[in-house]
Amino acid sequence: MARLVLKFGGTSVADLDRIRNVAQHVKREVDAGHEVAVVVSAMSGKTNELVAWARDASPMHDAREYDSIVASGEQVTAGLLAICLQAIGVEARSWLGWQIPIKTDNAHGSARIKDIDGTELIKRFAKGQVAVIAGFQGIAEDNRITTLGRGGSDTTAVAIAAAVKADRCDIYTDVDGVYTTDPRIQPKAQRLEKISFEEMLEMASLGAKVLQVRSVEMAMVHGVKTFVRSSFDDPKSIDSSPGATPVGTLICNEEDIVEKEVVTGIAYARDESQISLRRVPDKPGISAAIFGPLAEANVNVDMIVQSVSEDGSRTDMTFTLPDGDLARALEVLDAEREAIGFELIQHDKGLVKVSVIGIGMRSHAGVASTAFAALASKGINIRAITTSEIKFSVLINSEYTELAVRTLHSVYGLDKVSA
Amino acid sequence: MARLVLKFGGTSVADLDRIRNVAQHVKREVDAGHEVAVVVSAMSGKTNELVAWARDASPMHDAREYDSIVASGEQVTAGLLAICLQAIGVEARSWLGWQIPIKTDNAHGSARIKDIDGTELIKRFAKGQVAVIAGFQGIAEDNRITTLGRGGSDTTAVAIAAAVKADRCDIYTDVDGVYTTDPRIQPKAQRLEKISFEEMLEMASLGAKVLQVRSVEMAMVHGVKTFVRSSFDDPKSIDSSPGATPVGTLICNEEDIVEKEVVTGIAYARDESQISLRRVPDKPGISAAIFGPLAEANVNVDMIVQSVSEDGSRTDMTFTLPDGDLARALEVLDAEREAIGFELIQHDKGLVKVSVIGIGMRSHAGVASTAFAALASKGINIRAITTSEIKFSVLINSEYTELAVRTLHSVYGLDKVSA
Repeated sequence: MARLVLKFGGTSVADLDRIRNVAQHVKREVDAGHEVAVVVSAMSGKTNELVAWARDASPMHDAREYDSIVASGEQVTAGLLAICLQAIGVEARSWLGWQIPIKTDNAHGSARIKDIDGTELIKRFAKGQVAVIAGFQGIAEDNRITTLGRGGSDTTAVAIAAAVKADRCDIYTDVDGVYTTDPRIQPKAQRLEKISFEEMLEMASLGAKVLQVRSVEMAMVHGVKTFVRSSFDDPKSIDSSPGATPVGTLICNEEDIVEKEVVTGIAYARDESQISLRRVPDKPGISAAIFGPLAEANVNVDMIVQSVSEDGSRTDMTFTLPDGDLARALEVLDAEREAIGFELIQHDKGLVKVSVIGIGMRSHAGVASTAFAALASKGINIRAITTSEIKFSVLINSEYTELAVRTLHSVYGLDKVSA
Repeated sequence: MARLVLKFGGTSVADLDRIRNVAQHVKREVDAGHEVAVVVSAMSGKTNELVAWARDASPMHDAREYDSIVASGEQVTAGLLAICLQAIGVEARSWLGWQIPIKTDNAHGSARIKDIDGTELIKRFAKGQVAVIAGFQGIAEDNRITTLGRGGSDTTAVAIAAAVKADRCDIYTDVDGVYTTDPRIQPKAQRLEKISFEEMLEMASLGAKVLQVRSVEMAMVHGVKTFVRSSFDDPKSIDSSPGATPVGTLICNEEDIVEKEVVTGIAYARDESQISLRRVPDKPGISAAIFGPLAEANVNVDMIVQSVSEDGSRTDMTFTLPDGDLARALEVLDAEREAIGFELIQHDKGLVKVSVIGIGMRSHAGVASTAFAALASKGINIRAITTSEIKFSVLINSEYTELAVRTLHSVYGLDKVSA
């Protein structure tokens, strides 16, 4: 017997037939003797409808009212799933954020979970009752409903798993796990059996949209074993007995991964912009003069490359940012032109960042140089490079995205042999 | 300055344009210096959608889950109206049933309000804040959401008015008041300036669907002056200054009605059935033998007529009930045939009950006989009669409905002179 938290996203609960299918997944785990909590999102499309209404009511809407409106979507799904479970003989009740309660800070629209008391849920597990929990929502100190921001149901699931000390948190989604890279680009991509929290964090923040970044952080902090699996598998064909190994990817501590690969996966992020400031005075405080105002304007600067100046007086500063922030960044830099003192500003948009991720990198030298050689052999020009402990990234022109991903996937031995 | 509770039903908040119109009604009252709470229903159609989902999930659904699902409709409207009010410069916040809290019993699906603490709302009125309250919902002792049953937002509005000691509770609806009879049947029907709680209770229970019966009962118990008015009037054309007399009908204590009419209105209820039990033993306990089992089967018996038996041994017993209860009633009576001992059972369905209502009846003799003579002169056969202090009803065949209503409306001097 294990204690499990199952999370189902919007497409998995899109209509009553899908919700009934979810109920079968839950029943399977209950029948296998497990204690189960389920976290659900709003029926797909519902959140968008509610958000559109709130925006239409006023573009400058009160975030507290927005939260109360939007949280109603998960409230409906939770009630419907509880009814569907009861209808197939599974004892269940729904829980809203304020009923548990899931206490959050008061940052409405993107609140952070502060505390969850799992006592009552655990008491009811013991009586065989399934807890159906409305995801994405909590309650602030002033007794008003908060929401956790897009994808917040993942975070709810992991937080509940931590609060009830669950053995595993199963994230049911429309893919059957985490892949070595995007299978739409590289059909030879392989599903990973296991991936460490750190690696998953890098994958998630680079746009591998299986899990929300914050939920991975929370899983890492609390050591919640998180299992990504498909909600589209037939519930009746899955073996949930204690010894069985279901299909999916387990996100876990590095120590739980026996065979550590040097490189685990290749991720990419599109729509990156690059700004270069030419002939900036090479003096202390110049970075602050550039990046301080950008940070204040909420521009998300990523890679920063400062070239070494020839004569020690002038240098070039290059950095990347999302395309969406480019116009704002140029505006800010134009206003600060005098203060920074650059001679020329250049920019490019629509670039792509390709990243190679693997905890094995820590103990292996020369991992990055293999990539540089491989990309050069294909004639792919690297515009910028950044490296970290378990990841390095290269910025390239977008027309080379697929070629670069496939080249790197292959050179690090990630290609599926059978394909 | 007055303290007002305004209630807007589903058609008045059907979409964002209508909600913006409601915001203008609220702003008008705020601008006139009044303290305002607003109670809203779900956007029209939303409750039906949610109810259909719950029923589709399982016909035998858990009423607690049903309540949690269905209450989300009002939650959305309350948030949207709060945003629309803020957008036009009116300070406002939404309140859900559990936030105030509106405490109810635990009869999920048709809960009764037990207690509302108005302290916090009153405190915020003093700061100029409008309270936008989700109607139709409350919270039970076990911390779960309850709903008050269909039309429950009227009850919420009156209960809030009682809790905050409001000067008036304005029910905004799709008609501009309570009429002497249904204007679709009698175009000469007149809007009543005032009607007593008792009379309104009779009108409401007879299908004049302006207000839910329970809300009228509550208004009567707490002496809440309730004003029925149209939400379709242009908010900007209405004068809300303290001296102004808006268009509508005030439901109030009898004592506040100076000029009491003998007859206030003519109501009718369609789809009535009649059952006659022929030659029932005329002995003590026979009524209990008939109506006890019917009550247990939740059959709603209305008019009862027992004819005086010729020889003291056998009598006929006739009573009415809604068409919807007929099949069940016949089943029950068939099972009890031995115990009751009737010789013959007869029934008719699709009949109509026409009622004449007026507090003036108490002090005027012969009011009913005027009706009997008038109906007889038109050749309308009366199948049964019941009388009470301020009302009498006749059961007739449905093809005479319009003729009977118009005849009675005219004979009691209710016709509009100008029409």
